[in-house]
Amino acid sequence: MPAKPLALTQGDPAGIGPELTLRAWLERGERALPAFACIGDTDHLADLAHKLGWAVPMRACDWSEAGAVFTDALPIIPLASGSGRAVPGKPDLATAAGTISSIDRAVAAVHDGEAAAVVTNPIAKSVLYGAGFRHPGHTEYLAHLAAQGGVAPRPVMMLWCEELAVVPVTIHEPLRRVPELLTSALIVETGRIVAAELRSRFGIAAPRLAISGLNPHAGENGTMGHEDETVVAPAIAQLQAEGIDARGPYPADTMFHARARAGYDAALAMYHDQALIPIKTIAFDEGVNVTLGLPFIRTSPDHGTAFDIAGKGIARPDSLCAALKLAARMAERTATDAAP
Amino acid sequence: MPAKPLALTQGDPAGIGPELTLRAWLERGERALPAFACIGDTDHLADLAHKLGWAVPMRACDWSEAGAVFTDALPIIPLASGSGRAVPGKPDLATAAGTISSIDRAVAAVHDGEAAAVVTNPIAKSVLYGAGFRHPGHTEYLAHLAAQGGVAPRPVMMLWCEELAVVPVTIHEPLRRVPELLTSALIVETGRIVAAELRSRFGIAAPRLAISGLNPHAGENGTMGHEDETVVAPAIAQLQAEGIDARGPYPADTMFHARARAGYDAALAMYHDQALIPIKTIAFDEGVNVTLGLPFIRTSPDHGTAFDIAGKGIARPDSLCAALKLAARMAERTATDAAP
Repeated sequence: MPAKPLALTQGDPAGIGPELTLRAWLERGERALPAFACIGDTDHLADLAHKLGWAVPMRACDWSEAGAVFTDALPIIPLASGSGRAVPGKPDLATAAGTISSIDRAVAAVHDGEAAAVVTNPIAKSVLYGAGFRHPGHTEYLAHLAAQGGVAPRPVMMLWCEELAVVPVTIHEPLRRVPELLTSALIVETGRIVAAELRSRFGIAAPRLAISGLNPHAGENGTMGHEDETVVAPAIAQLQAEGIDARGPYPADTMFHARARAGYDAALAMYHDQALIPIKTIAFDEGVNVTLGLPFIRTSPDHGTAFDIAGKGIARPDSLCAALKLAARMAERTATDAAP
Repeated sequence: MPAKPLALTQGDPAGIGPELTLRAWLERGERALPAFACIGDTDHLADLAHKLGWAVPMRACDWSEAGAVFTDALPIIPLASGSGRAVPGKPDLATAAGTISSIDRAVAAVHDGEAAAVVTNPIAKSVLYGAGFRHPGHTEYLAHLAAQGGVAPRPVMMLWCEELAVVPVTIHEPLRRVPELLTSALIVETGRIVAAELRSRFGIAAPRLAISGLNPHAGENGTMGHEDETVVAPAIAQLQAEGIDARGPYPADTMFHARARAGYDAALAMYHDQALIPIKTIAFDEGVNVTLGLPFIRTSPDHGTAFDIAGKGIARPDSLCAALKLAARMAERTATDAAP
């Protein structure tokens, strides 16, 4: 376990983030969770716990106290009172400033060395847009905050579970656009970041990357599309030339069963469903979203605000708990490797 | 178990089909396999068994004897002696005529009511092409044979395992071409055939079809592509109008985990990897390829000739055995439903 607590954002207070936070703390023992502090609205969290009938003692504290507090109470880094006051399931523009502030303070805490990593509860982009937020999403906003330190980072989304780590090279794009958006340069850039972070944050000395083909059967020698030969294969050759153990292009359908997975540390897939189908098929509840390429560690649960079930106490905390545990593992690994 | 034996083709004699056939018979007890007869070259099968040191008694017989023979010996419907003589791993144009004859005789046997279903071992199209074969593949050739009875069938490929049945609407196409090839008519036609066969051959009175979107998140209201609204949704509406329980378009990444699978009997996916990734991730060794839309039952193992390991006795018979068992189950179900 890392010496410092994890910084957990509250996420949209009308979503399931607050109740997942409460439930994760309640289950901290059985799930062997690392210490975390929630940057949130204490009143909102207390109201919610009361309504759900969950006995969650809370204590407002600062980062240096959070680790000790965690044993007996949920440590809260308090937002302004009322800033996160929302009715579950009813997103409210008035809460946007608090939601953003929670993210800002989490990043500041890791930047200042007070927290080990950032773990983010889900936000609703539409709510933030309505309040004037101008970034495409959560990850881009984190990259923006990180860039204030100097070099602009290039964030890379990895989906992770114990059985599989997979990175989509293109993400939220219409399928029709994928062939034109996919370039050798994009694959190489992504592969470099994945390999570097597997070394620096996952403790894998010589990471093995498996790279999928774009087309069925990886194009089968050009009989089902040429991009695997003209775009994917040259990118793999370039990564290899840089000393990275990258292999492929592999037919995507035969890359993800258990024996195949044993042969690599992370898979690069060419588009959204090629990456997301296997991990959500294997680990629907426990998948973690990891943002690579930032100057700090950031994980999040692999689900949204789920306004439709918010406040009912039925949302599963599996993914948030997995995100907390992975963040701690990455922090510990990073600290170990950085030690003299 | 069906009263009639299954007709098992030999497949390419230089591939793994013959040794899988031997091994399936050897494991018929522990795997509770239905009776099958192999249409093959007895000398080739006997030589192979001898080389592998496998004690497989064989008996040339006709279809009416095969069921009784199966208990003590592998029933062989003999091809002309020498027609299937090949060195494992060395495909030979001289064997093409025998390979095709094996398929012809299997179809004739089900047509004549002597066999319950056709189960095909893998063939190598390149070998058959070299010998003048003019059909795109195994399935198209079976459709051609079936068409000789009258109406031209429209074959539909389904991948099946105990946990999932999935049908790709487009199959061996470059990813770039998928959006233009995917039409509402194609989805409707495929959905009709799948629903009809789930009723007639799988004993499902009111089949539930789950239909994927083409784009990530099924297009998310058009923000990631329009085909889900303009092509997929109208096809689903049409199927529903015909009384078929079709639902979607669903985001493909969240359709294939265990809880989601419990909600439907078959999934229709829009393209190859969207269909094949989930089933090969779940059931890499035990997947079965089922051809729907033919006037007879046809299953096959979901792998190729594997010339690189042929003759070594190491190929896994899981998929062939699953194909045999599913064919028998479908035959039994069809016979039961057809009974007065």
